[in-house]
Amino acid sequence: MGNTFGHLFRITTWGESHGGGVGVVVDGCPPRLPLTEADIQPDLDRRRPGQSSIVTPRKETDTVKILSGTFEGLTLGTPISMWVKNEDFRSEAYNEMAEKFRPSHADYTYHAKYGHRAWPGGGRTSARETIGRVAAGAIAKKLLREFWGVEVLACVTQVQHLKAVVDPETVTAAAIESNILRCPDAEAAPAMIRLIEERRGEGDSVGGIILGVARHVPVGWGDPVFDRLEADLAKGMLSLPATKGFEIGSGFEGVLLTGREHNDPFRNVEGRVVTTSNRSGGIQGGISNGATIHFRVAFKPVATVMHPQDTVDVHLQDTTLRGRGRHDPCVLPRAVPLVEAMTALTLIDHALRHQAQCGHPGSRNS
Amino acid sequence: MGNTFGHLFRITTWGESHGGGVGVVVDGCPPRLPLTEADIQPDLDRRRPGQSSIVTPRKETDTVKILSGTFEGLTLGTPISMWVKNEDFRSEAYNEMAEKFRPSHADYTYHAKYGHRAWPGGGRTSARETIGRVAAGAIAKKLLREFWGVEVLACVTQVQHLKAVVDPETVTAAAIESNILRCPDAEAAPAMIRLIEERRGEGDSVGGIILGVARHVPVGWGDPVFDRLEADLAKGMLSLPATKGFEIGSGFEGVLLTGREHNDPFRNVEGRVVTTSNRSGGIQGGISNGATIHFRVAFKPVATVMHPQDTVDVHLQDTTLRGRGRHDPCVLPRAVPLVEAMTALTLIDHALRHQAQCGHPGSRNS
Amino acid sequence: MGNTFGHLFRITTWGESHGGGVGVVVDGCPPRLPLTEADIQPDLDRRRPGQSSIVTPRKETDTVKILSGTFEGLTLGTPISMWVKNEDFRSEAYNEMAEKFRPSHADYTYHAKYGHRAWPGGGRTSARETIGRVAAGAIAKKLLREFWGVEVLACVTQVQHLKAVVDPETVTAAAIESNILRCPDAEAAPAMIRLIEERRGEGDSVGGIILGVARHVPVGWGDPVFDRLEADLAKGMLSLPATKGFEIGSGFEGVLLTGREHNDPFRNVEGRVVTTSNRSGGIQGGISNGATIHFRVAFKPVATVMHPQDTVDVHLQDTTLRGRGRHDPCVLPRAVPLVEAMTALTLIDHALRHQAQCGHPGSRNS
Amino acid sequence: MGNTFGHLFRITTWGESHGGGVGVVVDGCPPRLPLTEADIQPDLDRRRPGQSSIVTPRKETDTVKILSGTFEGLTLGTPISMWVKNEDFRSEAYNEMAEKFRPSHADYTYHAKYGHRAWPGGGRTSARETIGRVAAGAIAKKLLREFWGVEVLACVTQVQHLKAVVDPETVTAAAIESNILRCPDAEAAPAMIRLIEERRGEGDSVGGIILGVARHVPVGWGDPVFDRLEADLAKGMLSLPATKGFEIGSGFEGVLLTGREHNDPFRNVEGRVVTTSNRSGGIQGGISNGATIHFRVAFKPVATVMHPQDTVDVHLQDTTLRGRGRHDPCVLPRAVPLVEAMTALTLIDHALRHQAQCGHPGSRNS
Repeated sequence: MGNTFGHLFRITTWGESHGGGVGVVVDGCPPRLPLTEADIQPDLDRRRPGQSSIVTPRKETDTVKILSGTFEGLTLGTPISMWVKNEDFRSEAYNEMAEKFRPSHADYTYHAKYGHRAWPGGGRTSARETIGRVAAGAIAKKLLREFWGVEVLACVTQVQHLKAVVDPETVTAAAIESNILRCPDAEAAPAMIRLIEERRGEGDSVGGIILGVARHVPVGWGDPVFDRLEADLAKGMLSLPATKGFEIGSGFEGVLLTGREHNDPFRNVEGRVVTTSNRSGGIQGGISNGATIHFRVAFKPVATVMHPQDTVDVHLQDTTLRGRGRHDPCVLPRAVPLVEAMTALTLIDHALRHQAQCGHPGSRNS
Repeated sequence: MGNTFGHLFRITTWGESHGGGVGVVVDGCPPRLPLTEADIQPDLDRRRPGQSSIVTPRKETDTVKILSGTFEGLTLGTPISMWVKNEDFRSEAYNEMAEKFRPSHADYTYHAKYGHRAWPGGGRTSARETIGRVAAGAIAKKLLREFWGVEVLACVTQVQHLKAVVDPETVTAAAIESNILRCPDAEAAPAMIRLIEERRGEGDSVGGIILGVARHVPVGWGDPVFDRLEADLAKGMLSLPATKGFEIGSGFEGVLLTGREHNDPFRNVEGRVVTTSNRSGGIQGGISNGATIHFRVAFKPVATVMHPQDTVDVHLQDTTLRGRGRHDPCVLPRAVPLVEAMTALTLIDHALRHQAQCGHPGSRNS
Repeated sequence: MGNTFGHLFRITTWGESHGGGVGVVVDGCPPRLPLTEADIQPDLDRRRPGQSSIVTPRKETDTVKILSGTFEGLTLGTPISMWVKNEDFRSEAYNEMAEKFRPSHADYTYHAKYGHRAWPGGGRTSARETIGRVAAGAIAKKLLREFWGVEVLACVTQVQHLKAVVDPETVTAAAIESNILRCPDAEAAPAMIRLIEERRGEGDSVGGIILGVARHVPVGWGDPVFDRLEADLAKGMLSLPATKGFEIGSGFEGVLLTGREHNDPFRNVEGRVVTTSNRSGGIQGGISNGATIHFRVAFKPVATVMHPQDTVDVHLQDTTLRGRGRHDPCVLPRAVPLVEAMTALTLIDHALRHQAQCGHPGSRNS
Repeated sequence: MGNTFGHLFRITTWGESHGGGVGVVVDGCPPRLPLTEADIQPDLDRRRPGQSSIVTPRKETDTVKILSGTFEGLTLGTPISMWVKNEDFRSEAYNEMAEKFRPSHADYTYHAKYGHRAWPGGGRTSARETIGRVAAGAIAKKLLREFWGVEVLACVTQVQHLKAVVDPETVTAAAIESNILRCPDAEAAPAMIRLIEERRGEGDSVGGIILGVARHVPVGWGDPVFDRLEADLAKGMLSLPATKGFEIGSGFEGVLLTGREHNDPFRNVEGRVVTTSNRSGGIQGGISNGATIHFRVAFKPVATVMHPQDTVDVHLQDTTLRGRGRHDPCVLPRAVPLVEAMTALTLIDHALRHQAQCGHPGSRNS
């Protein structure tokens, strides 16, 4: 029962690495949004294997099909079911996975929890699971953009120890897409790409940090006390594979400041209340304050490496396992659309929730 | 509708700083747990103002009353309603808050979202809101301890730039409670306490980091793909006031390692599968793996400082506001029971969820 | 976890017959609704024991206190907690209930499910549980009336075999409240009242039927396919104690008609689409069509009778039990506000849901 | 957001009459249940058009494909996605539906609510929507049968005014399937079938009543106060197309009895607590008591008739519409598996909920 995200814009993903495919059902989408596969496919292409020299060379086209929820090019308000077929090539490289638990993967915990496990390609724990999120996220991004003017972006800002400089206020989609890493810092990106290639050459892998940004979010989204906007963003991000941390605004560095240094002063700028700094990260008390939302997500280095590592097998015997086949040396470029998707899904849910509670006929917000 | 946390062990908190009090309703508690106010009050006392020289000197006894859900000292399986009366002293120091938005507080966003705001003492945004969480968390901790042998702890590990050394495997409640800061590193704690006193003397405030720990969690808790155990922990932590970040296991530092360095090898130790390192933080693929769960939460410096700061008023005019009255110079010692509460509430919910899906009569786990 | 009703206007009730009281937390109420105890108490008075000669003569004042969620007479958008103290007189008449299961009550099933049971006064199974529903329902009714112009009513239309004639289109609150039975048919009511008194004189009890009505509901409320408006009404009604059936529009009698006879023709009447008959009961395909919603709820005769009846005790031994003390001979007059409450709670939740999905900025409905 | 049913065994259906198909995602299914399409298809065949002379002669094979959630013939504990392709023949008979609202169908309310409507074949309001329910229900029935020994059945007991005699304690699947009507009363069924054929000959339609039965349900399922077992059954039944009423146990007739006559005495029979009558319908206080659960559901006559009827068109102009094409003269035989499905889905959800709250390690129920 953990395969649903959102309350009002509610997505349910399904599918294993092998078998009939992967997909998502989106329930609660507002009616009359123009929508076809052409709105979805570009984000899936950004997530797809084989897109560049620094991701896995596996060839999967990941072509999405909308099975329901639209008619004559407009959403109906009914569930939107989307499906991407598996191409279902069962690599020889996978066979050892039937018996041995890959270190720092989910093989062992799935085995222990469910007592039965789809081992080919990792089954449900495969990165293919995120296809449904990206497809649903593309709808969420379109709704946010068209109905509320909200812009959602993400980009790579750190690879292992190499850091980029990115300004959440001004970064553009064009700059992000200008290189295969999706790092908009043109000076830092080439060295980062070389580092990834180097690690891959060593049969090793790296991790890094992705910045998430949402601009022009209206004041008022977020539902204290538990469903604070940053709490739901944190959940969305930590629900992504390979994530180890989330921080918003000043984040962990913020603890080095004192209160006087950290606080964001308010000013009236042309009739709007703005903060003259943004250590709050665009959210105060769990509710958006109109400033740019910006946060960072830590992705660990990819667990599959081309070296023998200690592990146990399904009979709980000690053994070793060496990664084989074609894998990502770094998850970051393909994870950028995932961060965007979870950001958009979190925001659209709160947009609808805000409309529900505070958009009533008697409200000054109506 | 954001005032409920959990699906099966479901808590709903209510209450403003001033008015009839604050409280919580716990729905889904298993029946026949021995429970009286004496199980709840100690954690409330750890959260309470006036408990030491480094927290606000306000005097509030925060005495809890169980209004329902128990009979003859045992839980009934029906909702447990708990209530703490407000003492409702409306300080003169608060009056300016009716008109001016405190910087980096939630006054402005509540005003903008709801169009109406209980300004005395911050209303719903007051730290008093967390009383209900701590009361419910005390029940969750007792259930975890008595029925599953799980131990939940939290402690302070950093104050501004001063860091403590704490081992999640061995830290004890006694060591944590051995000083007023709740930092178990006896060498580091005195300097940290002095730093807090110094900042208070300057009319300023500090933040820091709290470590959360759960030991002896059974293998198998957590519900991929969205309700991964770390995702729900992240949400719980970021739902706490003043939090800016969450990281689990290797966290943000983990991105500096390569895959080979980062992976946790498995070994069979006396018939149990264990990891010989724990950069995963006790969770793999969203499911507990039996190792100690450990994570860190960043708390920003307290927003109320005794210096004039730029802000706007309810008429959106620029003005300044200076903190007055009695405030915490540092939220950390009182936040330790909050981190424990949200940890325990997250774990108990997943304990029940695991029982629901994987504890059926036909299961080997039953 | 079954003590919450609604998704967006979400109520959680708590409390046993004896102990600290009974209450409710309402989460999701729109902000800025004028609200004081004076809006709630009248409906509680209609539910209260001792209000007339045909209900239990027990004296309970059931005075409600709002503990949170309002400020200066307006709702805040935060949880509204309401509490009614128990007067907690533990009648001698109850003592046998500690040992013996009352036939057709819930004593045995609670005992078997939870393994522990608050037997005084029936504990959670007491009719006092419905106080929280009525209090929350009063808020829902006020919201519906003030913001959407919707009118919610209920009345008694049958007592055992005696039937009243009531037109859902024209029945008024005044007519309903004109007698102690809450039956607006002035001709039928006196005989019905005499029947109740007669049964009470025999130490016996009766049941009957309550009509629920909602007028001026906007077109479009209801969420197919599972959360059809009539499905949620049915759930609300069957969640009330002592209910055995629900039917909407033509109901069970409707099966006697053919399709030609049963269908409701549409006509354009002054620019509005109306049905010239209303066998649909105001709902088509799960969505309100603008016509009056009308449905009927069957209440069984009260289970407590003043005659010895076969039962078993907690040791599972056969025995007999005879009702003692002061009981309702008929639940109907006090159940009228319950039916209104559950109707209003169902409708307001769907009002907010409709606003969420179909009230977006790009919608023609916005 | 109304397309999900259940909390722990949670199904989400999707799909319109025309387009990519219809389907369902089942989340929360316990792992390691043997499951293939062969477990699902038989119930879909019982729901299918063209199965007999008294249902619509449309030819649809409704072949189900399991896309995810199983591996090597066992459930994985991950979401089970099932899909039935549409054959997508767009009948000429449907064209008028683009412009005219069918009386007592959902065309008008969908149009008004969503502002956009898939008119071919009724879109989401088509009976094809129920395919997903039946597929998910087949899994629920198998779980109930294999892990808890619970048997779920439904059958026709009334067609228009013709009534059958059926005993919920003894009725068998074989008797139900012995005729095309699914009425186990061999004497009554032939006349009922003739009546349906007669009405069809007249271009008219009929409705009737279906009995739902669940036997060997353990004591203790059901979650007071709102999620009483009968409340969730009522919701499930009223969520089915064409239903107008639900009654359990004594139902609406029960109001004719006095309390003395209506109560179910308890007796100890071979160490088990049983009721010597069953007017409660197997549920007391919202919790199963171990007796057979039995209830009745009213289905209105089919709305599509072969006669001109008054209606309005999308321009709100008065007009007439005459049903054309191939339609069911009576929904009952095809609705029997729907009632079984919603019964099983309700029960399995409560089985898991009971396990969650009352099956903990410290419980005597564990």
